[in-house]
Amino acid sequence: MDFSKITELAGAQLMAVEMELANSLCSEIPTVNELVLSTIKSGGKRIRPLVLTISAGMCGYFGDLIPKVGVILEYIHTSSLLHDDVIDGATSRRGKPSANAIHGNNITVLSGDYLYATAFNNLAKLDDRDHAIVVSRAVAAMSEGEIFQMLKTGDISLSMEDYLKIIYGKTSALFAAACECGAIMAGMDADKRKALHDYGCHVGYAFQLQDDILDYFGEESVIGKKPGTDLAEKKVTLPIMLLLQELEGAEREEAIEAFLSVQLSEIMQLLVKHDIQRKSTAVVQMHIENALFLLNNFPDSQYKEALVAITYELSRRKS
Amino acid sequence: MDFSKITELAGAQLMAVEMELANSLCSEIPTVNELVLSTIKSGGKRIRPLVLTISAGMCGYFGDLIPKVGVILEYIHTSSLLHDDVIDGATSRRGKPSANAIHGNNITVLSGDYLYATAFNNLAKLDDRDHAIVVSRAVAAMSEGEIFQMLKTGDISLSMEDYLKIIYGKTSALFAAACECGAIMAGMDADKRKALHDYGCHVGYAFQLQDDILDYFGEESVIGKKPGTDLAEKKVTLPIMLLLQELEGAEREEAIEAFLSVQLSEIMQLLVKHDIQRKSTAVVQMHIENALFLLNNFPDSQYKEALVAITYELSRRKS
Repeated sequence: MDFSKITELAGAQLMAVEMELANSLCSEIPTVNELVLSTIKSGGKRIRPLVLTISAGMCGYFGDLIPKVGVILEYIHTSSLLHDDVIDGATSRRGKPSANAIHGNNITVLSGDYLYATAFNNLAKLDDRDHAIVVSRAVAAMSEGEIFQMLKTGDISLSMEDYLKIIYGKTSALFAAACECGAIMAGMDADKRKALHDYGCHVGYAFQLQDDILDYFGEESVIGKKPGTDLAEKKVTLPIMLLLQELEGAEREEAIEAFLSVQLSEIMQLLVKHDIQRKSTAVVQMHIENALFLLNNFPDSQYKEALVAITYELSRRKS
Repeated sequence: MDFSKITELAGAQLMAVEMELANSLCSEIPTVNELVLSTIKSGGKRIRPLVLTISAGMCGYFGDLIPKVGVILEYIHTSSLLHDDVIDGATSRRGKPSANAIHGNNITVLSGDYLYATAFNNLAKLDDRDHAIVVSRAVAAMSEGEIFQMLKTGDISLSMEDYLKIIYGKTSALFAAACECGAIMAGMDADKRKALHDYGCHVGYAFQLQDDILDYFGEESVIGKKPGTDLAEKKVTLPIMLLLQELEGAEREEAIEAFLSVQLSEIMQLLVKHDIQRKSTAVVQMHIENALFLLNNFPDSQYKEALVAITYELSRRKS
């Protein structure tokens, strides 16, 4: 299934999300609305509302909880972007000055808080315990993932288990919540809910791992940023973990030294020599397969086909 | 009623809050638990759980929603302290190094996010729409109040209406939510809920206004900080607003000049000359009277007497 077909399936709901995002914020403080709206507008592709819409559709739900929860997910995603930009000291977001660059760190952090609170206020109005629990748990995991990543910066003994914990928080938690909310609003049982949660989780892993691979093997003109950012920040990611698994003795020590002293060309040579791009891509492939396998829990439909297509699109992207 | 009697009335519930605060956090990341717990421990007097407990008792509710919501209120209060300390660049909190001084701004902001999310997760588990709406609305107002204060820094034309908006967010919103939750859990009607919400709101105003007065007229040895902090940060507060209302022509211009160039002794002379301490205290008194008047909506009881005593205690404190 190509993406125009997916857009056709989800289009009306995504349009409703977009309208609501443009109109729903009503802080009495114009600066807050302006800051939040400009970040929402530059916030990207509405992937979370998309997987929510398609997940719900696959479970047979097409009602107006979809745009309501879609907006909540985008608010939360936007809040996390605002806080991330402050934390990373980012100066731009998608080619425009970031909120913190324009309004300063303090107002940006507080606007993120305002938006989190607004998301939870909207959730409270839904009056559905399951949605509120799933979404709030995801937000807790998102913060934990970011903190865990900071604490593990430069830790070359990072285990795959801990690494998955980090990327669960960074990416999978909110993807998984989006998918699970689709099952919840359709009234699915616990097994189906878990299947869609786990599907979203593996898609999130595949997406983030692909991101980590592109950070070493992507082309600057395509990914829109300089490769080697993770290395510069001494973030231990999949390629480095797989490389260190391959090496022993002096070569391993040299690789660690090159990583800790941020020597990109030396690291790239080792990654190429040990075929790490292929090995990393195989890990992404495993998560894609896990994700697709979980969709067997649902009957065939256009929506299921769309989720299959989204799975490939998100995890095989070049940028 | 003296405070030992109030403690007797609320003691069991506050003890339950304390136990839950010490035991309930279960982030997988030890740093997060440590950071949050040390801030919670240094977080003060549990005023919000106290007014919640007494408000609920006045409405005839004594069940286990009290400690559950009390913990949620303390989580939210603590999150706001964590973010405030980052924003203010604080190095200490109640005589100990602040979380941001120990763990850095980034981990502190994210731990605040984690704690907000945990509070909302606990709220979701309560499965009560009204509690969730009231509390999440308060959190949105808290962030808005802080942002509004920043935007109005140094603005000597600040109106009393805008000033009350700021201190509504800073203090009243969560006080009012605590009181209203007491009415909600007791199943009170909308009028009683509004009466307790507005009561909490006026107590919050009185508390914060008294704080603003002490910032000019308190003794350093009693209030535990140097007077003049608000002036140093060019925060326009009640004493300054009342002073500027009194003055005209050249004297007003001189006062504005002294404020904007942070000349404490000159400002103090003017405040004394124009009897601003007494006039400011009269405004506090008005909010106390408004608060106490709202308690007429409830039948006499020990709990109501306790709320009267708390009202005086919070708004007439010297530190």
